[in-house]
Amino acid sequence: MPIRQTDIDLALRLADAAGEAIRPYFRTEHGVEIKEDHSPVTLADRAAETAMRRILDAERSGDGIVGEEYGVKDGVTGRQWVLDPIDGTRSFTAGRAIFGTLIALVEDGWPILGIIDQPIQRERWLGAAGQPTTLNGRAVRTRACATLEGALLATTSPHAFSGEEADAFLALVAAVSGGHARQGPVYGGDCYNYGLVAAGHLDLVCEAGLALYDFAALAPIVEGAGGRMCDWHGDPLTAASAGQVLAIGDPARTDEVLEALHGHAHDH
Amino acid sequence: MPIRQTDIDLALRLADAAGEAIRPYFRTEHGVEIKEDHSPVTLADRAAETAMRRILDAERSGDGIVGEEYGVKDGVTGRQWVLDPIDGTRSFTAGRAIFGTLIALVEDGWPILGIIDQPIQRERWLGAAGQPTTLNGRAVRTRACATLEGALLATTSPHAFSGEEADAFLALVAAVSGGHARQGPVYGGDCYNYGLVAAGHLDLVCEAGLALYDFAALAPIVEGAGGRMCDWHGDPLTAASAGQVLAIGDPARTDEVLEALHGHAHDH
Repeated sequence: MPIRQTDIDLALRLADAAGEAIRPYFRTEHGVEIKEDHSPVTLADRAAETAMRRILDAERSGDGIVGEEYGVKDGVTGRQWVLDPIDGTRSFTAGRAIFGTLIALVEDGWPILGIIDQPIQRERWLGAAGQPTTLNGRAVRTRACATLEGALLATTSPHAFSGEEADAFLALVAAVSGGHARQGPVYGGDCYNYGLVAAGHLDLVCEAGLALYDFAALAPIVEGAGGRMCDWHGDPLTAASAGQVLAIGDPARTDEVLEALHGHAHDH
Repeated sequence: MPIRQTDIDLALRLADAAGEAIRPYFRTEHGVEIKEDHSPVTLADRAAETAMRRILDAERSGDGIVGEEYGVKDGVTGRQWVLDPIDGTRSFTAGRAIFGTLIALVEDGWPILGIIDQPIQRERWLGAAGQPTTLNGRAVRTRACATLEGALLATTSPHAFSGEEADAFLALVAAVSGGHARQGPVYGGDCYNYGLVAAGHLDLVCEAGLALYDFAALAPIVEGAGGRMCDWHGDPLTAASAGQVLAIGDPARTDEVLEALHGHAHDH
C-alpha cells in the first residue's frame, strides 16, 4: 500500500518539533546528564521525544509508539511510530552536528516511512515506500560502486563489535582498503552515514549492536535511493535481527560484502 | 613577541580564499581523485592551497611555506606559513562537514598563530599567541575535567596507531571509560576535534602519525583556550615530534593521561 501524504506530513511535523526541542541544547553545558548505565543521554533527547509523543498522542492516538527514551505504547491500528530523538548522542555531546533524529512509521512490522533529520545543519532525509528518497526535498540516489576494493566504508565505532564480529568487520575493512590497512574506514557518524549512502557519498555502512529504533528509519531512506539494507547474512532487517546491519549503496556488491564478512563464498 | 594584527588579518584572508576554493567541490562527483598512494585527495585540496599560496607569494614573498599538497618553499624571514588545505579528506570525501582548513604561522620553529576553518558550517577557530582563542569571533575556553574517568575522548581512527601505540591508546580508552569498554571514544573528526576541545565540548584528543602540517595550527588554538598540547611524553610538539599528539582541555589531568598511556606513573 502506498504511503499516505497525511502520514508524510505528520512525520515532517514530528521532525520539526524534535529539531525545535533539540537546538537550544546543542553545545550548552546543561544538556548533559549521566544515566545509571553511564551512557550519555541528554535533556534534549527527552525533550524531543516528549514533543513528538505529544503530537502523536493528539493526532494518532490509535497508533503504537516505540521510543528510545520512553519505551513502548501499544496501539490498535497495526501501525507503530518508532522514534530515536537523538541517534548519535556522543556526537551531540561532543558538539558535532552529525547526529540525527530518527522517525519511522512501521506497518505490520515493516518500515514504510523513514526520516533522518539533522537539526543543526538543517538536513532532512525522507524515505517513503514507493517514492524516491529526498534530501531537503531534492531526490537523491546511491552511487554505483564498480569494485568492493574501491568502496568507501563507514562505521560509528570499532567498540560496537564483539569478538567474532570484530574479526568479520576487520575482514571487510581489509577487502575495501585493498591491503592499505592504515587507510581504514570512515569512523563516527551514526545515522548520518546512512543518509550519506543514500545521497551517494558513501558506499557502505557496516554496524553491529543496533536496535529497531536505530535502523527502522534507515531502511526506507537507503532503499528509496536505490541501495540495500540487510543484516550480515543478506536477510531483511526485522525487530528480531541480531543488530548486525549493512547499508550497501550499490546492491550489485552485496555478495562480495557478505563474502568478505564471512571469509568464504556466501550461499545466500 | 606578540603577534601583529596584519598577520592575523592575512591569515583570515587565507582562510576565506581556501573556503571559497573548497565549497564548490563539497559533495560533488568531480572532487575525488586517487593518488598513486591510494590516499584520497581532492581537487579542492589543490585549489585551496593554490589560492592561499597565491596570496602569500604576493604579500609575504620572504616567508617560507610548508604545504600539505605542494611542499616546501624556503623563506628568508625565519617565518613559515604551514598549510593543510583539507585536514580530514576522508570526511570531506564522505560528505561530512567536519573537516577543516589548517593555517599556521610558525616563527623560529614555534607556531604563534593557528586557524581551523570549517568552510561548509562556516566555523572558524583562531588562536594567536597572547590572545584568547576565538570561534567565529567569540572567545572560547576549554572546560574543567574533574576526573580522567569522566573525560570525553576523541580520535580520528583506530587504524592510525601502530602496535605499541594501539596498546597505549586502548589503555587510555579504558581509563576514560571507567571499564565500560563498549562506550569507547568519539571517532572521526580530525582537526575539528581540537576545535571542540578549545570550545569546551571535548576533554581529550589522542592521536598518532600526525605531521607538522597536521598539528602546527592546533597548538595556538587549544593553548589559547586554556588547554595543553603535547606529545605522548608531555613534551612540547615540534617538527621533530614522533607524531604522537595529545590535546588536553584541563591541564590538571595531564599526569593522569600520561600515566594511563604508559601504564605507570610518569616521571615527567
